[in-house]
Amino acid sequence: MPEHNVSRRGLIGGTVGVAGVAAGFAGGAWYGDDRAESDATTATGSAATYPFRGEHQAGIVTPAQDRLHFAAFDVTTRSRAQLVSLLEAWTTAAARMTQGLPAGPVGPTEGAPLVPPDDTGEAIGLPPGGLTLTFGFGPGIFRDEHGRDRFGLADRQPEALRDLPHFPGDQLDPAKSRGDLCVQACSEDPQVAVHAIRNLARIGFGTVAVRWSQLGFGRTSTTSTSQSTPRNLFGFKDGTLNVKAEQTADLSTYVWVGPDDDQAWLTGGSYLVARRINMHIETWDRQGLQPQEEVVGRTKGTGAPLSGGSEFTPLDLAMKGSNGPLIPLDSHVSVVSPERNEGVRMLRRGYNFVDGSNPLGGLDAGLFFIAYVRDPRTHFIPLQTRMASHDAMMEYLRFTSSAVFAVPAGTQPGEYVGQALFA
Amino acid sequence: MPEHNVSRRGLIGGTVGVAGVAAGFAGGAWYGDDRAESDATTATGSAATYPFRGEHQAGIVTPAQDRLHFAAFDVTTRSRAQLVSLLEAWTTAAARMTQGLPAGPVGPTEGAPLVPPDDTGEAIGLPPGGLTLTFGFGPGIFRDEHGRDRFGLADRQPEALRDLPHFPGDQLDPAKSRGDLCVQACSEDPQVAVHAIRNLARIGFGTVAVRWSQLGFGRTSTTSTSQSTPRNLFGFKDGTLNVKAEQTADLSTYVWVGPDDDQAWLTGGSYLVARRINMHIETWDRQGLQPQEEVVGRTKGTGAPLSGGSEFTPLDLAMKGSNGPLIPLDSHVSVVSPERNEGVRMLRRGYNFVDGSNPLGGLDAGLFFIAYVRDPRTHFIPLQTRMASHDAMMEYLRFTSSAVFAVPAGTQPGEYVGQALFA
Repeated sequence: MPEHNVSRRGLIGGTVGVAGVAAGFAGGAWYGDDRAESDATTATGSAATYPFRGEHQAGIVTPAQDRLHFAAFDVTTRSRAQLVSLLEAWTTAAARMTQGLPAGPVGPTEGAPLVPPDDTGEAIGLPPGGLTLTFGFGPGIFRDEHGRDRFGLADRQPEALRDLPHFPGDQLDPAKSRGDLCVQACSEDPQVAVHAIRNLARIGFGTVAVRWSQLGFGRTSTTSTSQSTPRNLFGFKDGTLNVKAEQTADLSTYVWVGPDDDQAWLTGGSYLVARRINMHIETWDRQGLQPQEEVVGRTKGTGAPLSGGSEFTPLDLAMKGSNGPLIPLDSHVSVVSPERNEGVRMLRRGYNFVDGSNPLGGLDAGLFFIAYVRDPRTHFIPLQTRMASHDAMMEYLRFTSSAVFAVPAGTQPGEYVGQALFA
Repeated sequence: MPEHNVSRRGLIGGTVGVAGVAAGFAGGAWYGDDRAESDATTATGSAATYPFRGEHQAGIVTPAQDRLHFAAFDVTTRSRAQLVSLLEAWTTAAARMTQGLPAGPVGPTEGAPLVPPDDTGEAIGLPPGGLTLTFGFGPGIFRDEHGRDRFGLADRQPEALRDLPHFPGDQLDPAKSRGDLCVQACSEDPQVAVHAIRNLARIGFGTVAVRWSQLGFGRTSTTSTSQSTPRNLFGFKDGTLNVKAEQTADLSTYVWVGPDDDQAWLTGGSYLVARRINMHIETWDRQGLQPQEEVVGRTKGTGAPLSGGSEFTPLDLAMKGSNGPLIPLDSHVSVVSPERNEGVRMLRRGYNFVDGSNPLGGLDAGLFFIAYVRDPRTHFIPLQTRMASHDAMMEYLRFTSSAVFAVPAGTQPGEYVGQALFA
């Protein structure tokens, strides 16, 4: 069809003004369907696009989009060449989809009649909604469960990239834990995030299989000072003290792997820790407001510390009330506070989830915790150990999935994701 | 706190202009947190509200919102009075939440210190996003599994309200099927829909338990001529021929229960049929474009019938090509077409879903089918039987959940949901 009858209806009602947004969509790049006469749009449409290539991968300090589809993959091939081919193909498709283009150059509706389309089509007409795709390598890519080198990469495994230890409160589902590769897809539109994961899985058919996947519907973290603080399913603001994009010195200290940290190929990258945290929301909902606030250490309304002030007032862990510290010693914010944890902070990027119901007649609901840290051994494991042993909030939590991935630095033009690992 | 420091940030980027929208939010009604200094908003915020009370329940002909949280409940009490009290409490809370108010009059942050808040708080600062809450009664409310009258309602069970028969292709999970009560929550913001279901479950503690629940992330139907047609996970437009709000005569014929149909208490109501349909998307994605289009009977791009024209051109089932009808006899649109099914149409209101992964290394994904029909015996069962036996699309489908509910007419001021049933 000759005429490019592109509706721009997707722009109406969309969010604009996201800091640092490239103008790829405005140039007409999108999930093109030249033949479309009317185009489906969602009320959540957003014209935002973020560059796929750069110093760091997008989707870490990018202002947290509101929807998540996270997938962990098992590599099913023994061939290093096939694995590299997959990463090349994923890079090409990811660079396209994040700019609002179909996964492949032909697109969902223009191919030869008997050839499967190179895009699955459910995102036709949807703007990219700030889609980012972030890739990581799990411990299993280096060694199999018997410790054997799988792809000639064993001597490149970072010391810090090991399965997390068992923590108190862990009731992990092995089928929903670990993974050789991961892809974090974030967008303002869940259909766009799902479309991206689905097309990457399609491209990987025969080389990888989806091990587990998780949808998240509401961001629980703020990764930019331009964002307000959202709420988790306890009803409290979450992520107030998160490391944010604008705090570049803190990012270097707490998030990005430095050149002398460990394996050179991971310089400029980070570690992604994923933990599926079930919340006993039915039990929580039967607690009074004050006990809830004493578990968290902040007020439910504004998120101010119980030591006073407003949301961003520093905690005063020493301030005494009539019954000990105003911020109880076993409250969540006290237990995980940097001043009680050798100054450690992390960049959290979690999402609320509801996955149906549980056998007890409640919702299978909670927080899918994602954090980016410079070294899990120093920046995550000690904190999680402390939390699991001392945090009053643990009474309402159950950890049901766990995984850790090394997330390489950004991809340069002409490179594929993680190329430095294979070089 | 005296000052009402209400941020309106939730309005920025929101969708406005939805036909028939009341202005509740604009008047300051919302999930109030008077103390909030900064308020979490989502990029999908929408100021739309719909009246809770009316001739019919909202959430049927209401323009389909983009997100769903559907819950089926088991009633755990034997007391009719307790059941009625629950419906009264649900009515009050639903009327409030659909107008953007907290579930209870005290709200999430203003209660006495040791009393559980009467709202859970995760929707503080979020506009209602056109939230509708639609209630239904399953067969189990009338008789238990042994056929015994549970609440003195057995003689009021409509003949049409029976568990659906087994259809070819059904592989139902009993734990995710049926239910005594259902609530369909639809909103542009999933956190608002989840918040509503979660608070109704909280209010019902001790009287009901969640039997199963389902999130949907993308509407697959159009219930108003003001909406464009969205796409399902096969990548095709879905719901082109849906009965729409503006077709009032068709609604009377196909959707609303008439005064002489069956039980008088259900007049002006409808039947909700829910079917969780898993799609074998990995298999689908390996089919050529032409075979895909021949299974559906429409083009993937515009959704036009294979007999020609554009999306809304009537099907020409007789038009011949070189190999038989251009629209194959076993294509989906042909098999379910009104002209081959005694003119039957339905109002569909389904959603795309992804619930993690399946053991085969693919996504547990598909369509959560919801339809509103005047009588399942004539308007759903014959069509589903025909589809299950003759539709080429069945090769890619597996039905994993099934339920049917009687949805009473709208609630009048001073009434509770379903009051006519108990009168």
